[in-house]
Amino acid sequence: MSSGFFGDVKPVKYEGPESTNPLAYRFYNPDEVVLGKRLEDHLRFAVAYWHSFVWPGGDPFGGQTFERPWFNDTMDGAKLKADVAFDMFSILGAAYFCFHDADVRPEGDSIAESDKRLHEIADYFAAKMEKTGTKLLWGTANLFSNRRYMSGAATNPDPDVFAYAAATVKTCIDVTQKLKGENYVLWGGREGYETLLNTDMKRELDQMGRFLSLVVDYKHKIGFKGAILIEPKPQEPTKHQYDYDAATVYGFLKRFGLEKEVKVNLEQGHAILAGHSFEHEIATAAALGIFGSIDMNRNDYQSGWDTDQFPNNVPEVAVAYYEILKAGGFTSGGTNFDAKLRRQSLDPQDLLVAHIGGMDTCARGLKAAAKMIEDKVLTGFVDDRYAGWSKPEAQDMLSGKVSLEEIAKQVNDSNLQPQPRSGRQEYLENVVNRYV
Amino acid sequence: MSSGFFGDVKPVKYEGPESTNPLAYRFYNPDEVVLGKRLEDHLRFAVAYWHSFVWPGGDPFGGQTFERPWFNDTMDGAKLKADVAFDMFSILGAAYFCFHDADVRPEGDSIAESDKRLHEIADYFAAKMEKTGTKLLWGTANLFSNRRYMSGAATNPDPDVFAYAAATVKTCIDVTQKLKGENYVLWGGREGYETLLNTDMKRELDQMGRFLSLVVDYKHKIGFKGAILIEPKPQEPTKHQYDYDAATVYGFLKRFGLEKEVKVNLEQGHAILAGHSFEHEIATAAALGIFGSIDMNRNDYQSGWDTDQFPNNVPEVAVAYYEILKAGGFTSGGTNFDAKLRRQSLDPQDLLVAHIGGMDTCARGLKAAAKMIEDKVLTGFVDDRYAGWSKPEAQDMLSGKVSLEEIAKQVNDSNLQPQPRSGRQEYLENVVNRYV
Amino acid sequence: MSSGFFGDVKPVKYEGPESTNPLAYRFYNPDEVVLGKRLEDHLRFAVAYWHSFVWPGGDPFGGQTFERPWFNDTMDGAKLKADVAFDMFSILGAAYFCFHDADVRPEGDSIAESDKRLHEIADYFAAKMEKTGTKLLWGTANLFSNRRYMSGAATNPDPDVFAYAAATVKTCIDVTQKLKGENYVLWGGREGYETLLNTDMKRELDQMGRFLSLVVDYKHKIGFKGAILIEPKPQEPTKHQYDYDAATVYGFLKRFGLEKEVKVNLEQGHAILAGHSFEHEIATAAALGIFGSIDMNRNDYQSGWDTDQFPNNVPEVAVAYYEILKAGGFTSGGTNFDAKLRRQSLDPQDLLVAHIGGMDTCARGLKAAAKMIEDKVLTGFVDDRYAGWSKPEAQDMLSGKVSLEEIAKQVNDSNLQPQPRSGRQEYLENVVNRYV
Amino acid sequence: MSSGFFGDVKPVKYEGPESTNPLAYRFYNPDEVVLGKRLEDHLRFAVAYWHSFVWPGGDPFGGQTFERPWFNDTMDGAKLKADVAFDMFSILGAAYFCFHDADVRPEGDSIAESDKRLHEIADYFAAKMEKTGTKLLWGTANLFSNRRYMSGAATNPDPDVFAYAAATVKTCIDVTQKLKGENYVLWGGREGYETLLNTDMKRELDQMGRFLSLVVDYKHKIGFKGAILIEPKPQEPTKHQYDYDAATVYGFLKRFGLEKEVKVNLEQGHAILAGHSFEHEIATAAALGIFGSIDMNRNDYQSGWDTDQFPNNVPEVAVAYYEILKAGGFTSGGTNFDAKLRRQSLDPQDLLVAHIGGMDTCARGLKAAAKMIEDKVLTGFVDDRYAGWSKPEAQDMLSGKVSLEEIAKQVNDSNLQPQPRSGRQEYLENVVNRYV
Repeated sequence: MSSGFFGDVKPVKYEGPESTNPLAYRFYNPDEVVLGKRLEDHLRFAVAYWHSFVWPGGDPFGGQTFERPWFNDTMDGAKLKADVAFDMFSILGAAYFCFHDADVRPEGDSIAESDKRLHEIADYFAAKMEKTGTKLLWGTANLFSNRRYMSGAATNPDPDVFAYAAATVKTCIDVTQKLKGENYVLWGGREGYETLLNTDMKRELDQMGRFLSLVVDYKHKIGFKGAILIEPKPQEPTKHQYDYDAATVYGFLKRFGLEKEVKVNLEQGHAILAGHSFEHEIATAAALGIFGSIDMNRNDYQSGWDTDQFPNNVPEVAVAYYEILKAGGFTSGGTNFDAKLRRQSLDPQDLLVAHIGGMDTCARGLKAAAKMIEDKVLTGFVDDRYAGWSKPEAQDMLSGKVSLEEIAKQVNDSNLQPQPRSGRQEYLENVVNRYV
Repeated sequence: MSSGFFGDVKPVKYEGPESTNPLAYRFYNPDEVVLGKRLEDHLRFAVAYWHSFVWPGGDPFGGQTFERPWFNDTMDGAKLKADVAFDMFSILGAAYFCFHDADVRPEGDSIAESDKRLHEIADYFAAKMEKTGTKLLWGTANLFSNRRYMSGAATNPDPDVFAYAAATVKTCIDVTQKLKGENYVLWGGREGYETLLNTDMKRELDQMGRFLSLVVDYKHKIGFKGAILIEPKPQEPTKHQYDYDAATVYGFLKRFGLEKEVKVNLEQGHAILAGHSFEHEIATAAALGIFGSIDMNRNDYQSGWDTDQFPNNVPEVAVAYYEILKAGGFTSGGTNFDAKLRRQSLDPQDLLVAHIGGMDTCARGLKAAAKMIEDKVLTGFVDDRYAGWSKPEAQDMLSGKVSLEEIAKQVNDSNLQPQPRSGRQEYLENVVNRYV
Repeated sequence: MSSGFFGDVKPVKYEGPESTNPLAYRFYNPDEVVLGKRLEDHLRFAVAYWHSFVWPGGDPFGGQTFERPWFNDTMDGAKLKADVAFDMFSILGAAYFCFHDADVRPEGDSIAESDKRLHEIADYFAAKMEKTGTKLLWGTANLFSNRRYMSGAATNPDPDVFAYAAATVKTCIDVTQKLKGENYVLWGGREGYETLLNTDMKRELDQMGRFLSLVVDYKHKIGFKGAILIEPKPQEPTKHQYDYDAATVYGFLKRFGLEKEVKVNLEQGHAILAGHSFEHEIATAAALGIFGSIDMNRNDYQSGWDTDQFPNNVPEVAVAYYEILKAGGFTSGGTNFDAKLRRQSLDPQDLLVAHIGGMDTCARGLKAAAKMIEDKVLTGFVDDRYAGWSKPEAQDMLSGKVSLEEIAKQVNDSNLQPQPRSGRQEYLENVVNRYV
Repeated sequence: MSSGFFGDVKPVKYEGPESTNPLAYRFYNPDEVVLGKRLEDHLRFAVAYWHSFVWPGGDPFGGQTFERPWFNDTMDGAKLKADVAFDMFSILGAAYFCFHDADVRPEGDSIAESDKRLHEIADYFAAKMEKTGTKLLWGTANLFSNRRYMSGAATNPDPDVFAYAAATVKTCIDVTQKLKGENYVLWGGREGYETLLNTDMKRELDQMGRFLSLVVDYKHKIGFKGAILIEPKPQEPTKHQYDYDAATVYGFLKRFGLEKEVKVNLEQGHAILAGHSFEHEIATAAALGIFGSIDMNRNDYQSGWDTDQFPNNVPEVAVAYYEILKAGGFTSGGTNFDAKLRRQSLDPQDLLVAHIGGMDTCARGLKAAAKMIEDKVLTGFVDDRYAGWSKPEAQDMLSGKVSLEEIAKQVNDSNLQPQPRSGRQEYLENVVNRYV
């Protein structure tokens, strides 16, 4: 590897479940065919540039713990970082990566200089992507770290910030298109409020709707083929973020007529902070027709902030992929590890080991889910549970052929006494445990 | 009073802030004019039948603590309960009440018998309403307590339950109309799921959409003038309820084209369980045009279930009414005390004292909010904060006249460097403290 | 089986991991030897009488869903219930059961009558225990359901309630001893407060200390050999319970000099409600020398109340048993399923299936934990991590041989610059995933 | 003022409740006598150096927002910071301040250099304290920010870190004594764990006990008269902190025989993160005899991290001071504002306004609490509620004169049937609302 950061580590291989080699896959065999598709094509793994190569290990009570040779604010540092990143993509055999503009180049003194640097790094990436075969799952703009965004980007009380954010997104979409990115993501980390006392929510929602429409129009204008994705999160850093969860985003899209144009990128950790399970968010987005991609990680259920840990609980991951497979699997989306090392995991090898564990957990989960689909162990039960609805009288109720008073008359005339049937939750949970 | 339950208590009067009489109002003076309207007409207080007259004091670890002479399953019991209820309405001077069918009459062996009993009690109510002047804020159907609803009402896998629920709602709307109720509320306590493993979410959402359309059609058919209201709640009793919060309900209404037909009845406790402040839910509903009414109570922030306590924190209540007043105040809605005594508060007088405290807290909060509106202490600040958006260039961005690349060009050409301004949250919080 | 409730179900057998028989064990093979002990003797499974045979399926928004022939308030009902219970113990091959007085007999009009009935049922049990070989893991008194306990039992403001509770516990210990129970448990479901406004906490803590001392003294007096166990829970039904968690109970025991006399019965769900992982509570109790027994279940992390679900997540269960095995395993304690069916799981077979799934989950978890112990994969790492503390200078610091200023002098003299080492959390999580 | 940072602001004066001057006190009149003591002597306000003068406005998703001329890593910067800090203390009329070593001087290349710098700044402080009359409420050491502490200080697996931390604390106590600090605080921000997989909890608890004993011994040796205080917090930055809450700290102190030597410094925000109300923590510490001081702030109940906001809810603050006054008020402790500006509050005046609002909120709360004490409106009710315990038979139970079986015999003989009495929570809440 060119950078030498990981020492003389060989590309990570699949060695099967019995392997005890910490640098081997036990479940992720990219070429294994599951439900008629290669595992790599199902999972579409992406490494997140920010957590793995930018985050210094800080938390609210302590500073940097990681010491990386590229931690400096120069273009040389940015290129060394890229060298290490692509080394890691190759070692892992990760098909994709994802990045924000701020992850990959130092900001310039003017927006023009910042844009120029971004294109320069994009060209540097392009050469590496060509050489290694790593692809871009999605690009995005960091519209939350710089102090100019402290009161929001699209939803800022100052229209100059809206404009600055718009200009920034334009460049990021351009670069994403240049790198053949398969999606473009918007995470509104500051699109929300700290206190309603100084906020005009209606106005801010309108600003946000306009911003998104501008982005969608531009995408079509330049012929960008990827999906536009919104990433819901309920709060943090703000007290409240407008893209709270999948159902909220759906209502927002619907209000601005964008529900056919924009999908969601769902994150396990964000789902949990919103009071939902990850599978709930996926099922909701699928039911509403806006499922796009996932940010895979896990969140400590008992820490009320975004812990962005690597997934390690196979039963949890399996039910998430089960919902994805039921919804037809990924199209443009994929499995981005929006996960970071614990700040005490200082060593280069920790980066590899964390991704290997995450990828294996996902592969194991997806294979279990696929087998459940094949065996129809859950779908058969569910179909049977709702079977009454296929009767003509039931269909008439559902289609609106009969009115409320007609239904009421039938109920009275027949002295209907509905009898409950067991939901068999424990049985179904046991069934899942046969697969995970 | 006819029932004698409260002893020889006199109607509760306003005695002013210095009163130490536990059976007097210190802040609720119904005839006081605030922002050009009587306080009674602003607040539109309603007593909730279920908590005050039906709930036996049980919790998940213990049974009945209250001993009430009407606790029996007979029509005589139901009438005694009504006597006591109307006594209390009169003592308190509460303008309104609210009820479920199951609160006011014992269920019959057939739905026909149940309906007949409901009409009988409604007639009993009508006479009392005529005599006392108490009005019906809203009626509703209990579609969650009986075991037939254990897997949902509209969203049940069994269409018979859907039909039974529809027939029940028809009767409840009829009765609400008979009693000149000003709204009709649907709370989907079981419209959700316990586990996705046995659930077809998409199908259930479609069922729920159809159910609501049936209700709206029926309302128009019979000429019911009141508003149809959905009451959001995120979970409990279910693991997940589809009417999670105001934003989720908006998306649901929009999906079924009902956003002009149906509004929300927001509850403080439900807001909190969904991770929101009460004022957030009100501001959201107002911004989306679906604000209807409130269930006023408070929830222990540190108990993860619906504690339904009487409100007692004036600063909290004031910011909620502030959002209501900003949104134009109640039209058909009002302030329903969906609040119950603590189960150790055994005495009849506890019922009175709890309502008096709640009404006083609300009155004090609303008066503070009204004064803030009059003094423009917050709105002035907010208007100024967004003032930049009134400039023509900003208006062009917002109206969609300029495209993303045009904005980007302007930003680059002018080398725009937006400068953040203080949000002054602490200052604004201090300002609020001058009023509460 | 004598009762016929479960139909003609055969005793559940171990059939191995590949079995798809819902009424077979896939992992629980009682006679399998792990770390030198039979699995049955490791796990010491107990069925909880209350959840399986007493709970009617109610929740705060709905009543009974289960229909059981013994749901009546008679001694005949109590005996039929016992018949069904012992049928189930035999079908499952459960080694133990646990009960409260209120679970097994209807309360009488006087305490004398209640006690007499309890002894009568105990005798009925004794005969069945003799015949089936099922043993009593622990007995306990229900000091929270009856309205007399609404303000606490030992901590009640009324000394009569303290006395009544004391008398009740005496009988329950007597009966536990008669049935050769291996422990006696106290869960202080109402030992806490709803509001500090009406509470004298210091006084209540003193009352609680006295009560526990009375129990300990009595145990010794009658020669009861079992352990006295306190079951921590942070809240629910109360706003705050004094036995919040293991660390709090330790401080309480220490204050009253009872830390050698009393241990804790830890519950997964209660741990989670207190903001802890289950393994944390076990590790804490073990570190403080008060680990006794467990109430095994799982709690929905996103429902803020006690959901008491059957465990089904093997990785979670494995790390809990890992801490138990590290601490030497159970002595008098065991694995009590303080878990209840979901209220929609109506059928008799649901009861069996739920326990089978729970027992299999535990067996699988314990076997994984045992293998990790044998392979020393975690302990080796941990020992190495703290190896610096075995050096003499470090031992001197720890033993108190050197003072603060002596340490400071050495640090200054040597210009000490400690260097952090990776904590390798992701690596260790991957290691665990090799076992679960 | 010497620094000019705040412009030409005059010292903040008390102007009474009707004042609308944002730079005046409306409730905090230092010389007002309440319960026989000046308000300043009751409240003992302290400004926290770290939040007001060190924190740059960053959060996990964004960097510095504040621009302060002293934000540089030099001793000149440190002195300018001190100039501004003492300006602010004087403007506010704050009686006290608090600091960590790391707040006030840049760290040196060696511990000797760091210590030397700390003493240099302490001397700089001493002159200013002499001149302004501002006193030191407490000093403390930052044992959590530097990467050397990433795995804990006293509980680090590496004894070198323990030693380094010990040396650091020695210097901080020396400096605290030099400045006549009235307490010394230990907050164990990293004394806990991220994962049990790499942790030996028992060993770490022993290390922590030894560390505390070293500190206590040293205090006595040098004749430091102030109190040693532990500050509980449940988690953040760690997954679990050993000093979880007041009850846990009590057990820890008891275990190491330090319960007479060490008290607690309780923080509102930490209480909330532990699942407690602030008044609960105060009442618990008071009941256990370890109440010391408070870190006053407020935490968003719906953000699961430490939000450290300035208090602004008078009813909440009033019940906290009510518990403090019931416990006898502060001795060496005081009211430290461990509160920070919102990161959007950029202006110097925001710092003043935030403290003024916080101080006014506390003053208003304390005065309300004092009046409740004087009027005995709660204590009278409580005394009456427990009055039964003053009867001789009840006293005999409590003192241990009668045994469990004697109590049981009396209960049976008298056929005792305790009758519950209303707890009157709503009444008491209304009473409190007469005062706030």
